[in-house]
Amino acid sequence: MRQTQLFTKTRKEAPSDEVSKNAELLIRAGFIHKELPGVYAYLPLGLRVIENIKQVIREELDTVGCQELIMTALQSKEKWEASNRWSDEVVDNWFKTKLKNDTELGLAFTHEEPIADIMKQYVSSYKDLPFFAYQFQTKFRNELRAKSGIMRGREFNMKDLYSFHTTKEKHLEFYELMKDVYMKIFTRLGLGDKTYLTMSNGQPFSKYSFEFQTLSEAGEDIIMYDKEKKIAINKQDYSEEMFEDFGFKKEDFNFEEGKSIEIGDIYTLGTKYSEALDLTYTDEDGKNIPVFMGSYGIGITRVMGTIVEVYNDENGIIWPESVAPYQVHLVSLCREEGDIKKADEIYEKLTAQGVEVLYDDRADVRPGQKFADSDLIGIPKRIIVSPKTLEQNSLEVKMRNEEESNLVKIDEL
Amino acid sequence: MRQTQLFTKTRKEAPSDEVSKNAELLIRAGFIHKELPGVYAYLPLGLRVIENIKQVIREELDTVGCQELIMTALQSKEKWEASNRWSDEVVDNWFKTKLKNDTELGLAFTHEEPIADIMKQYVSSYKDLPFFAYQFQTKFRNELRAKSGIMRGREFNMKDLYSFHTTKEKHLEFYELMKDVYMKIFTRLGLGDKTYLTMSNGQPFSKYSFEFQTLSEAGEDIIMYDKEKKIAINKQDYSEEMFEDFGFKKEDFNFEEGKSIEIGDIYTLGTKYSEALDLTYTDEDGKNIPVFMGSYGIGITRVMGTIVEVYNDENGIIWPESVAPYQVHLVSLCREEGDIKKADEIYEKLTAQGVEVLYDDRADVRPGQKFADSDLIGIPKRIIVSPKTLEQNSLEVKMRNEEESNLVKIDEL
Repeated sequence: MRQTQLFTKTRKEAPSDEVSKNAELLIRAGFIHKELPGVYAYLPLGLRVIENIKQVIREELDTVGCQELIMTALQSKEKWEASNRWSDEVVDNWFKTKLKNDTELGLAFTHEEPIADIMKQYVSSYKDLPFFAYQFQTKFRNELRAKSGIMRGREFNMKDLYSFHTTKEKHLEFYELMKDVYMKIFTRLGLGDKTYLTMSNGQPFSKYSFEFQTLSEAGEDIIMYDKEKKIAINKQDYSEEMFEDFGFKKEDFNFEEGKSIEIGDIYTLGTKYSEALDLTYTDEDGKNIPVFMGSYGIGITRVMGTIVEVYNDENGIIWPESVAPYQVHLVSLCREEGDIKKADEIYEKLTAQGVEVLYDDRADVRPGQKFADSDLIGIPKRIIVSPKTLEQNSLEVKMRNEEESNLVKIDEL
Repeated sequence: MRQTQLFTKTRKEAPSDEVSKNAELLIRAGFIHKELPGVYAYLPLGLRVIENIKQVIREELDTVGCQELIMTALQSKEKWEASNRWSDEVVDNWFKTKLKNDTELGLAFTHEEPIADIMKQYVSSYKDLPFFAYQFQTKFRNELRAKSGIMRGREFNMKDLYSFHTTKEKHLEFYELMKDVYMKIFTRLGLGDKTYLTMSNGQPFSKYSFEFQTLSEAGEDIIMYDKEKKIAINKQDYSEEMFEDFGFKKEDFNFEEGKSIEIGDIYTLGTKYSEALDLTYTDEDGKNIPVFMGSYGIGITRVMGTIVEVYNDENGIIWPESVAPYQVHLVSLCREEGDIKKADEIYEKLTAQGVEVLYDDRADVRPGQKFADSDLIGIPKRIIVSPKTLEQNSLEVKMRNEEESNLVKIDEL
């Protein structure tokens, strides 16, 4: 992508009402646009990051046999009344709206009810189970406050996966598998080191559940984490009883405390929703039994915000390679026609090789501004082409997270 | 994908309240689920079709320099009041909702206002123009009736593209280009033959505009079309004046009439929204001038519905290759372990070659049912592997839209 064609530009300042670091940097770098507090549009650079995050998750979920679908935002109240989640007194973050004939509708904040309802069409016998279905879907949550940038949105993208098994035992096998799959996903997204499998209160679904918490000063949670054992407890849920129930001894752990962001959660739902929505199967003996369900979330936009919170410095964002909007930021300082042609050729060649390149081909911008923009945007690898480097048939290569740069021969690139 | 793992199954009947052919077939074949009238979930097979349609469009738009972003459903009223489109008396299909503090919000049915507002950040000089930005986004329209299946949704996916130019002349060049790009897109989607560039009333944006109308008995419009000249007029907008304005003589045309579905439209917006939202640029002389805008829509889910309306027979759907959920439906009639192993190998081999295969590996389903399911699902190429074909080291290949099948040696596949 030529930067002269990209419609976004960097900005010196974010909107004055933007208090979160992630949104401030993402707005200044041209990744997102604030529509309303907690409601952000994703501009070309931002959408590329979102799609990269989704693709990593999609690959890992498909590998273990999950199937992608997409459900709807608009919801009729019957299904949610069945599970007692329609009332605004029970669920305090519904957005509600109405059809022309005054029928009330809700905008889904999650999808346990509709997916249980869909599956009634497809599950009759134990032979139809298990299966696992997920979506990347826009969720709506009427949050009272939204001051965490893209980390707590009123409209945001979420991956939600639902599992359907005959028995709790079979569910728990899959649940254990998902712990590993999630950690693999977060590791690929660059958050592995700072992310802890975290024991927490499982309400309203079960006594306990697990969250994935990423250490960050921007976090709204506090975890007690053991670096070596790579496990944590959500501090607000900590109790002696929890330790006993998990068969742990407190003296075996070396806990530190830190603020953290919940980027994923995995729930054992049991038969709460299958019973409410009448999703049953017939077992080998012809008996009707409610399906055993689980749900597994990852906030896509929250992950993106977390990555920015974790990977930045005073000059801007530092994207991990797996999610960066482009792999290479080719910055041209060329002014003469012959040099510009050579820079263009390098861009074409890299692109033809399948390298994703953002090419700063702007003619009227000073080098200092170009480097500042490049730092702010945060593409992991910067390649500078200038009259000086071309004299030596070379390019200057600098990683965003390193100070030093290297001259590399053009032919070796 | 092994059919034993796919959670959907075919159904004998669609819901009794489903009156449209497209939704009936898509529900029976397991592509979609009806959540509410005009509100459909897309199940794994359906989502694959949607993504294929989007990918064709994305490729053609990116080729001419368009940039993808994604805006938000939630909208604050200020921007829409500026253009006089907030009031329910002016726009009769808003879904409205509220924040906790009672601030009214709308769910976007289109995005001229928010994109003009976003672009104020990025446009100051004539040097910043032109550019073209598009999204695939979920639109909400509070339709009074929704009886056309996925062709007229209350919640549906739409590609909307917006163009930004300095002058009308430059806009019109791009507008002409988009006519070709759209026709190329619809041709790739298998709708080229039946789709006509259609002159129509351009209200509320301009005197005239162009629609893309696909001939189909399921259509809600009527067009007068000239097969040879490959042009049409929306009958309700036909007038002598229109002909004169376009410099056409009626006697030069050989019009037939037919029902049709509007699958795309391209509008010259002019400066209506840039003036309302104060999106201006400075020209060479330092003068402040409103940006000249255009908008270009394609209903993704409507295109999918149209394809089903156009391509079906009494047995089911007949997908064009470019959008089919899978390229090959491998149907195994094998019962013996050795044969099943061979069928599995063929599936693995095709998949390893990058062929997208749906593999009917169901053991407990009769051949007749398998063929009926395969016809209903409508994958273009069916490959049958059976004890009989294996005896001859062969497979039986049959195209969905042909009667005859051929034996092909396994090695030649």
